[in-house]
Amino acid sequence: MIKVGILGAAGYTGGELIRLLVNHPEVEIVFANSESNAGNPISDVHEGLIGDCDLKFTDELPFDKVDVVFFCFGHGKSEAFLKEHNIPESVKIIDLAQDFRIKGDHDYVYGLPEIHKSDIQKCNHLANPGCFATAIQLGLLPLAKAGLLTNDINVSAITGSTGAGQKPGATTHFSWRTDNLSIYKTFTHQHLHEITQSLNELRPSDTPKVIDTLNEGYDAEGITVDFVPFRGNFSRGIFCTEVVKINDTTTDVEALYKDFYKDAAFTHYVDKNLDLKQVVNTNKCLIHVERFGKKLVITSIIDNLLKGAVGQAVQNMNLMFGINETMGLKLKANAF
Amino acid sequence: MIKVGILGAAGYTGGELIRLLVNHPEVEIVFANSESNAGNPISDVHEGLIGDCDLKFTDELPFDKVDVVFFCFGHGKSEAFLKEHNIPESVKIIDLAQDFRIKGDHDYVYGLPEIHKSDIQKCNHLANPGCFATAIQLGLLPLAKAGLLTNDINVSAITGSTGAGQKPGATTHFSWRTDNLSIYKTFTHQHLHEITQSLNELRPSDTPKVIDTLNEGYDAEGITVDFVPFRGNFSRGIFCTEVVKINDTTTDVEALYKDFYKDAAFTHYVDKNLDLKQVVNTNKCLIHVERFGKKLVITSIIDNLLKGAVGQAVQNMNLMFGINETMGLKLKANAF
Amino acid sequence: MIKVGILGAAGYTGGELIRLLVNHPEVEIVFANSESNAGNPISDVHEGLIGDCDLKFTDELPFDKVDVVFFCFGHGKSEAFLKEHNIPESVKIIDLAQDFRIKGDHDYVYGLPEIHKSDIQKCNHLANPGCFATAIQLGLLPLAKAGLLTNDINVSAITGSTGAGQKPGATTHFSWRTDNLSIYKTFTHQHLHEITQSLNELRPSDTPKVIDTLNEGYDAEGITVDFVPFRGNFSRGIFCTEVVKINDTTTDVEALYKDFYKDAAFTHYVDKNLDLKQVVNTNKCLIHVERFGKKLVITSIIDNLLKGAVGQAVQNMNLMFGINETMGLKLKANAF
Amino acid sequence: MIKVGILGAAGYTGGELIRLLVNHPEVEIVFANSESNAGNPISDVHEGLIGDCDLKFTDELPFDKVDVVFFCFGHGKSEAFLKEHNIPESVKIIDLAQDFRIKGDHDYVYGLPEIHKSDIQKCNHLANPGCFATAIQLGLLPLAKAGLLTNDINVSAITGSTGAGQKPGATTHFSWRTDNLSIYKTFTHQHLHEITQSLNELRPSDTPKVIDTLNEGYDAEGITVDFVPFRGNFSRGIFCTEVVKINDTTTDVEALYKDFYKDAAFTHYVDKNLDLKQVVNTNKCLIHVERFGKKLVITSIIDNLLKGAVGQAVQNMNLMFGINETMGLKLKANAF
Repeated sequence: MIKVGILGAAGYTGGELIRLLVNHPEVEIVFANSESNAGNPISDVHEGLIGDCDLKFTDELPFDKVDVVFFCFGHGKSEAFLKEHNIPESVKIIDLAQDFRIKGDHDYVYGLPEIHKSDIQKCNHLANPGCFATAIQLGLLPLAKAGLLTNDINVSAITGSTGAGQKPGATTHFSWRTDNLSIYKTFTHQHLHEITQSLNELRPSDTPKVIDTLNEGYDAEGITVDFVPFRGNFSRGIFCTEVVKINDTTTDVEALYKDFYKDAAFTHYVDKNLDLKQVVNTNKCLIHVERFGKKLVITSIIDNLLKGAVGQAVQNMNLMFGINETMGLKLKANAF
Repeated sequence: MIKVGILGAAGYTGGELIRLLVNHPEVEIVFANSESNAGNPISDVHEGLIGDCDLKFTDELPFDKVDVVFFCFGHGKSEAFLKEHNIPESVKIIDLAQDFRIKGDHDYVYGLPEIHKSDIQKCNHLANPGCFATAIQLGLLPLAKAGLLTNDINVSAITGSTGAGQKPGATTHFSWRTDNLSIYKTFTHQHLHEITQSLNELRPSDTPKVIDTLNEGYDAEGITVDFVPFRGNFSRGIFCTEVVKINDTTTDVEALYKDFYKDAAFTHYVDKNLDLKQVVNTNKCLIHVERFGKKLVITSIIDNLLKGAVGQAVQNMNLMFGINETMGLKLKANAF
Repeated sequence: MIKVGILGAAGYTGGELIRLLVNHPEVEIVFANSESNAGNPISDVHEGLIGDCDLKFTDELPFDKVDVVFFCFGHGKSEAFLKEHNIPESVKIIDLAQDFRIKGDHDYVYGLPEIHKSDIQKCNHLANPGCFATAIQLGLLPLAKAGLLTNDINVSAITGSTGAGQKPGATTHFSWRTDNLSIYKTFTHQHLHEITQSLNELRPSDTPKVIDTLNEGYDAEGITVDFVPFRGNFSRGIFCTEVVKINDTTTDVEALYKDFYKDAAFTHYVDKNLDLKQVVNTNKCLIHVERFGKKLVITSIIDNLLKGAVGQAVQNMNLMFGINETMGLKLKANAF
Repeated sequence: MIKVGILGAAGYTGGELIRLLVNHPEVEIVFANSESNAGNPISDVHEGLIGDCDLKFTDELPFDKVDVVFFCFGHGKSEAFLKEHNIPESVKIIDLAQDFRIKGDHDYVYGLPEIHKSDIQKCNHLANPGCFATAIQLGLLPLAKAGLLTNDINVSAITGSTGAGQKPGATTHFSWRTDNLSIYKTFTHQHLHEITQSLNELRPSDTPKVIDTLNEGYDAEGITVDFVPFRGNFSRGIFCTEVVKINDTTTDVEALYKDFYKDAAFTHYVDKNLDLKQVVNTNKCLIHVERFGKKLVITSIIDNLLKGAVGQAVQNMNLMFGINETMGLKLKANAF
C-alpha cells in the first residue's frame, strides 16, 4: 500500500484527490492536513464522501509515516512551504501548484505522462501540469513534434467554475455566472509558460521557436500561442479549440495524432466532433481534428479537476510507484 | 415626474429597481446612494445598464429633492437608518426590508396591492412584502377569505439564488449551487410572520387562527403553515406549492380564485399547470389549483426580484402617486 | 464472471448500466441489444464510453450465453417481450420497468435491498424499484415499520431530466427546461402503487392502511401519500421532502432511522441538512430528519439513474449472485 | 398604428416578436398565422404572454388589413411562400430567414442598421441579418472600413440553445446540453455568406478581398473568416471573440470603434471586459477590444433572439415606418 499525505486537503483539488484515493486499491490515506478544519470530518467539507470515509482533517504533518505527499496548495505556497519544513528524502512529492513546472534550479519533473513517462517513473519530485496547460498541450504536441507549428496558434479554451477554486467571489457567484460567459487574462494566462516550454521541447530545431509572450513580449522572433481563456457556466471541464495553419498539405494529420497517443492510457484521438460531457468525471483527454485547406481546427477536452489536476496527479503517482498507470482511475463518466 | 431617491442602490434589489425606473415614463432618478461605490457609474456595478443610464452612485442624501425614497437595505437596517436620519414628512418611503411589515408602533402599510390597494393609495410609508411571502400569500389568501383554511397547510417553495443577495458565500458559490438543491430554515423562515398576519386578517372569525409558529411554537391552538424553503439552481423566480385540506366539497375553488383576483393588475388564475419561466422577468403572479377529494394543490409563481421585491415596490409607488398601477411594469418576459 | 445481456441497451438506463458494468470486476457484458443501433459502437451512442468499451450493439439475443439479462425497456414492454421470447430458466432477469413491481401472478421479487435483502439473494426474477419510489420509500419506511404513519403524508420530490428518458420532447427541450420548474402528475404518479405496497407491507396491523389513491380514490379509509412530483432543471438526482405528523412525542426518530439502516450498504442517516450533489453519481441514499412538535420533515436524496435505477439493479445483481453488495458500485461522487 | 401580420407565429422568433409587439406603443398585431395552432390562444404556446395578450393563432392571411408582415419561417421557406402567395405591394415585408440576405435578383435590403440605415428607411422589403452574422459583423466592420483587415480572421462564437429553434432534437435535449459544450459546422456556417458580403462592401478597394470560403474554397486569393461556432449551455445570447492581426501600430482602435458606432442606437463600445448577461433580454450589441502588439482581440455580444433576430427586425420596422428607432425596444435587461 502506498501511504499518502495530503496538504491543502480542504480545497477543491484536495477533496477531489480524497474522492479518488478512497477507492484506490493500493493507497492508504495517512493524513489530510488542513489547519482551519483540523478535527472535523472530511465529509463535512467535501461533497460526496459521506459513508465513504471516516477520516478527519489534521493539523499535524507526520511525514515519517508516508511514502508520498500531495501539495494541493494555492499557487506559490509550495515553494514557501518547503523552505519552512523538512520533508524526508524518502518521501516523494507531487506538487499540484505551478511553483516547479518551469525548468530551473530544482529536480521536479513536469508530469505530463504523454511525453515524460520514463522521467516520471524515475522521479521523486513531480510538478503536476496546469489544467488549461494539459488540454492545450495535448491538442498541439503532435504537431510540434512533427515540425508543423510554423505559424501563430489561436487557442480558445472554456473552463468550468471549479478551476477558480473554493473561495467565493464575484465571478463564481451563482447569480452572476449562471447562463453567463466572459473572457479573462486574454493572451496573458500564466499557463503560457508551461505550454511554450513543452512545445519548444518537442519541436525540431529547424522550426520557429514558440515565444513565451509573458516573458518576451509580442515582438520577439518566433511564433505565438494566442490564448483566450473563457469562464464557462458549468462546474467541470475544459473545452479547447486550437486553430493552426500548417505549411504542408501532405501529412495525414489524423494518423499523426493516433500514432502520437498510441500508448497513452487516457488520451484518445476520436474521428468525430466531441462534446465536453464525454470526459466529465473521467481522467481522459479526447482530441479531434478537422482540416480546411492548410488550416487545422483541433478540439481537445478534459475534466479540469481530473486530467487537469488530481486525476493526472494520481496517474503520475501510479507511474512513480511502478503500478498500473490506470489504477484507481477507471471512473464512471458522469455522462449527464 | 416622480423624483426618486434610492438607498442601498448597489445591491441586487437596488440594481433591479434602477433597471425598472430608467424606463418608467413618470420617474426621474434623482440619486442612487451607495457609500462604497460613490462616484462610480451605476452601469459598472449593475448588469444590463450600459447605454441606458449615465447616472453615478453618490454618498449624498438630498432628501429635499425627491418625492419618494426606496430603502433597498438589508433587513434590519431601515429602522436603524431612520433613527439616524431625518427624512422630510413630504417624502414618501417604500421600504423593501422586513422592518415594518408587521403591524406595530408605526404607520407603514403592508404593500400587497391584491388586498390593501386603497390603504396603499393613501399611505406615505409602505412596507413592501417579502418574496416568499408574496408568492405564498397570493396562493392562500382566497381560501383564507372564504373560510376554507381549517387544517394545517403544507408549503414547499423553491427560490432562485438572487433571493440570497449579492454577497458571495458558500450556498451561492456557482460550483456548489449549479445542478444542486437543498432546503434551509425548515419551518422557521421569517416570512411566516407576515404570511400568518395576512391570513389572520382575511379569515372569518369563526375559522381557526393561523399560528405564527416562530412566536407561539407548535403547541398553540390553531392551524400552522408548514413551510419548507428550497434553494433552487436558477437565478430568478419562486415556485410554490401549497397543499391544503378543506372540509368542504361544494365550493367552486377556481371561481373563488378568479373572483378574488378579478381586479388584480398582475395576478392571474390560470386553468392549467404552470412553469416558472412564464413569470420570469415580469411582475406577474400566476396561480393554478388542482383538486383531489378534499385536498387542493395550489401552485403560485413569481419573479422574486420583481413581484417579490422591486416590481411590487414600483406597483406600490404607482398606487401611492395615483398613476396607472402598471406603468413601467409592462415587461417583456424573458421566456427562455 | 457473471455473463450479462442487456435489452434496451441504447436508452439512458442501458447506457448507465454499461458505464457501471465495464468497470465491474466480476462482470462480462456478453451482448447489448438494440435493434435500431445494431452494428454501431456503443460509444457512438453513450457519452463517456470512448476508450472504455469496444462493444457494439447487436440485434441478436443469445440468451444461452448469459447468466442474467437486464430489461432496460420502457414501461410495459417487459411483459410483452416475455410473451414473445423464451428466456431459459437458468437465466436470471432484472427488470428495470414497472411491469412486475406490484405483487401478483408472477415470481418477481421487489428489489429494494433495504427491506428485501434475503428474498433478493434467493430470487431469479427481480423487479427493480422506480426512482421516485426508491427515494420516497427510503424516507418513510422506518416510520411505517415503527407504526408512526397515522396521518396523511405530504411528499414533494424534484427529479432531474434524465428521469424523462432519451426521447426529446417539449418538457426536456433545453430552451424550455433550463432555469425552469414545473409539476406534473400531481397526486397521480404511478409510483404511488409500489410506495403504498411497501408501506403497507411494513406497517403494524393496528395502524391505518395506506390507500393506493390511484386505485381506490380519495374517499377510501386510511391515510394517503400526497405526492407532488416536480421537474427540476438539472440532469441527475431526486430531492424529496416528506412531511409527516406523528401522534407520538417520545420516539427518538434519529435513532429509529439509524437502526433501520444500520446494515444498509448505501443508505445512510445524516445528522444535518443535505444537498443533492452529495449523492450525484453515486449509489447512495442519504436521509435527514428535522422535528417540529409532532411534525417531521424528512429529506431523502438519490441519483435517479443509480440508486433510482441501474445502480440499484447492479446492487441487486450482486446480491442475486452472492457477491459483495457494493462491488462495482464504489463510485467517485461527481461533487460538482 | 402600424398594423402587423406575423407568419410562422408559433416558433421561437414568432413568440419573441409577439412579446415585443404587445408592448410596442405604435403597433397593432392584426394576425398571427400558424396553421397547426389555428384557433388556440397565443399564450398557450408562448411563455410569458398570459395576461398580456388575448390573441389567437389563425390560419388566415388577411394581407389587405396590414401594413407589414414578418416572416418568421424556417430558412428557405420565405421564397417558397412568396411564390405561392400574392402580398399586395403596399405591404412591407421583413424576412427573418436567410433567403434574401445575399444581393441578387431581388429588392431586399440587408437590414443591419449600423451600416444601412438610410437604405432601410426607404425600403419596402427587408432581409433581417442572421444572429451569428450580426454579432460577428458588428465586431469586425469598423476594422473593415478602416482597411485594417489584411490577414485571416479567427472567430469563435458561442450561441444559446434558442438559436436552434423550437423543434426538439438530440443537441437541444436538456439532459445532453446542460453543462455541455460542443462545436458544429466548423468553418462552414452559412452565415459566412452575409458576413463576407458586408466586409467586402465596407473594405477599401486596395485591401484584400474577404473570401466566401463556402463558395470559393480555401485556395482562393484573399483573406478568410475562420469561424468556429459553439453550442453553449444557456438559452439566450451569443458571445463572440474575433482575433485579428493588423499591419499597423498607429491606429487608435478604440477611437475607431467609438466613432463608427457613435450614431448607433443599440451598439456600444465598452472599455472593459464584457460578460454575456449584460445584453441578455436587450436589443444591444456591446463591443470591447484588447490589443497585444499587432493582435486585436475583439469581443462582441448580443441576445440572439433580439439584436440577433426579432429585436433587430423591430428596429428595422421602426426605421421603415419613420418612427423612433428604439420604440418598443427599451427592454429591462434580465441581468440574472
